[in-house]
Amino acid sequence: MSVHVAVCGPGNASPQEAEAAEQIGMLLAEGGAVVVCGGLGGVMDAAARGARSAGGTVVGILPGDSPAGASEHLTVAIPTGLGEARNALIALAADALIAVGGEFGTLSEIALALKMGKPVVGLNTWELVRGGQTVQAIERADTAEQAVKVALKAAGAD
Amino acid sequence: MSVHVAVCGPGNASPQEAEAAEQIGMLLAEGGAVVVCGGLGGVMDAAARGARSAGGTVVGILPGDSPAGASEHLTVAIPTGLGEARNALIALAADALIAVGGEFGTLSEIALALKMGKPVVGLNTWELVRGGQTVQAIERADTAEQAVKVALKAAGAD
Amino acid sequence: MSVHVAVCGPGNASPQEAEAAEQIGMLLAEGGAVVVCGGLGGVMDAAARGARSAGGTVVGILPGDSPAGASEHLTVAIPTGLGEARNALIALAADALIAVGGEFGTLSEIALALKMGKPVVGLNTWELVRGGQTVQAIERADTAEQAVKVALKAAGAD
Amino acid sequence: MSVHVAVCGPGNASPQEAEAAEQIGMLLAEGGAVVVCGGLGGVMDAAARGARSAGGTVVGILPGDSPAGASEHLTVAIPTGLGEARNALIALAADALIAVGGEFGTLSEIALALKMGKPVVGLNTWELVRGGQTVQAIERADTAEQAVKVALKAAGAD
Repeated sequence: MSVHVAVCGPGNASPQEAEAAEQIGMLLAEGGAVVVCGGLGGVMDAAARGARSAGGTVVGILPGDSPAGASEHLTVAIPTGLGEARNALIALAADALIAVGGEFGTLSEIALALKMGKPVVGLNTWELVRGGQTVQAIERADTAEQAVKVALKAAGAD
Repeated sequence: MSVHVAVCGPGNASPQEAEAAEQIGMLLAEGGAVVVCGGLGGVMDAAARGARSAGGTVVGILPGDSPAGASEHLTVAIPTGLGEARNALIALAADALIAVGGEFGTLSEIALALKMGKPVVGLNTWELVRGGQTVQAIERADTAEQAVKVALKAAGAD
Repeated sequence: MSVHVAVCGPGNASPQEAEAAEQIGMLLAEGGAVVVCGGLGGVMDAAARGARSAGGTVVGILPGDSPAGASEHLTVAIPTGLGEARNALIALAADALIAVGGEFGTLSEIALALKMGKPVVGLNTWELVRGGQTVQAIERADTAEQAVKVALKAAGAD
Repeated sequence: MSVHVAVCGPGNASPQEAEAAEQIGMLLAEGGAVVVCGGLGGVMDAAARGARSAGGTVVGILPGDSPAGASEHLTVAIPTGLGEARNALIALAADALIAVGGEFGTLSEIALALKMGKPVVGLNTWELVRGGQTVQAIERADTAEQAVKVALKAAGAD
């Protein structure tokens, strides 16, 4: 089975976030990974577009009960009807997770993945601080290339 | 987006059920449908094997929290960690559902699909009786070919 | 911990169904059981009203993401945001399930409970037929009193 | 309907965390709130114990598919079988959330609540930093009393 990498980030992405997500999707597909995402707009749509441009497979795990509103670049759209609880399914389906930017939904996906012991790579995303100390749970990347390289390695792709 | 058809049935299938499910999977893939199933053994595995033999896409929506135990014929495996609640996701993801044989899990998928207003086709599966009267909610098929033909039409494939 | 018994049935109940459900709720509460239901109208609301009239505890496991539309007779309302997938939670939370009348949603709850090995008691509800033979999985009751008596015994209440 | 306040924190609590959680549970119950928690040990169990000591109602929304392992102080135990996806249900069921200490599971509950627009109060819990800036989304409290006071007000209790 191919390695699965989730790409998470805001549904309303900045141009920089969308560009990074598209490149991440493309590089993951070139690296042989299945891309998993939340299936909607912004970072999710950009990652899907990138992966498809490289002939990859993209699975969108949607919060709603129909494919309405899904990115047109998904290979497979899974409506869950679970609302925010679907974030746990994104984390479960992934061998590693890349967070790009991020609002609170992305933070929940980061936290759920970490709780499940999955590696998380961050590009301009949340930093976790507890008791005044940064908790080094998210591997920081400075570029899309680096994020993909770290994520593929952490996910066990060879 | 391609039409999605779920194939449901027992994880321990009889040889006849497995043969029918494999043929259903193959014919659905030949008809251009994405096959959705519960991702485990028996009817699910046979439908996946049939669909893959025709070059189709098969999505397995798994009850557990990892792909362990999944059919090796899935294109995409989605571990949900939801247990039996994942049956609702199978029904949601499908434009139509074909039930082959069936135990109580299959009955729950039939009922959830009917509750959602999705067409259900049955091959040697449950009959629904209320107040001594058969409720004609499941379209009966006598062969795999007929089940696929009815399901594809009901799902809106052309 | 008290025994938990789910009462399931249509959101649009007939007067007879509502009357039976109210009596079932009352008798369950008098028998010391916590009543679990889907938290909405019809049979669910009637069972809650009955249980509260006897000073009982009623938990409503709601499909939506807020308590809006919930029965006013619930002791505890749990919005799940899971849609129909919440039916699995009702079955899980119950030591036994009583089905009164019933549409497809009720059928799914019966099937999920049976799949989980939970006892199911039916009052004017679905009959399950496979291969022309009735499957005797649902214990039939003719009255509310009988349904409660059988359910409490099956649930392990003493 | 009473105000519902979730109390979240690690299943393995320090003595200080457990003491704070117990006091929070007690004060919430005295304030008329229903306490919602994850139903297991540590902070969850301590909050339940505190609420029950004041005669309150405590709902435990469990990740597993049975009440096994649940705190003995729950009024109502809801096994969900959803695993980590149940964290979304805790956030949904609450009008406000108090986080005490916290590991990644608690972080996911904070993030899900914020995503849903629910007020979050933190006692020695995560700080959220993005782009080098602290995001002031969690109201900080220094004592159990203060946490409860802020949460009850934010939840709309009067």
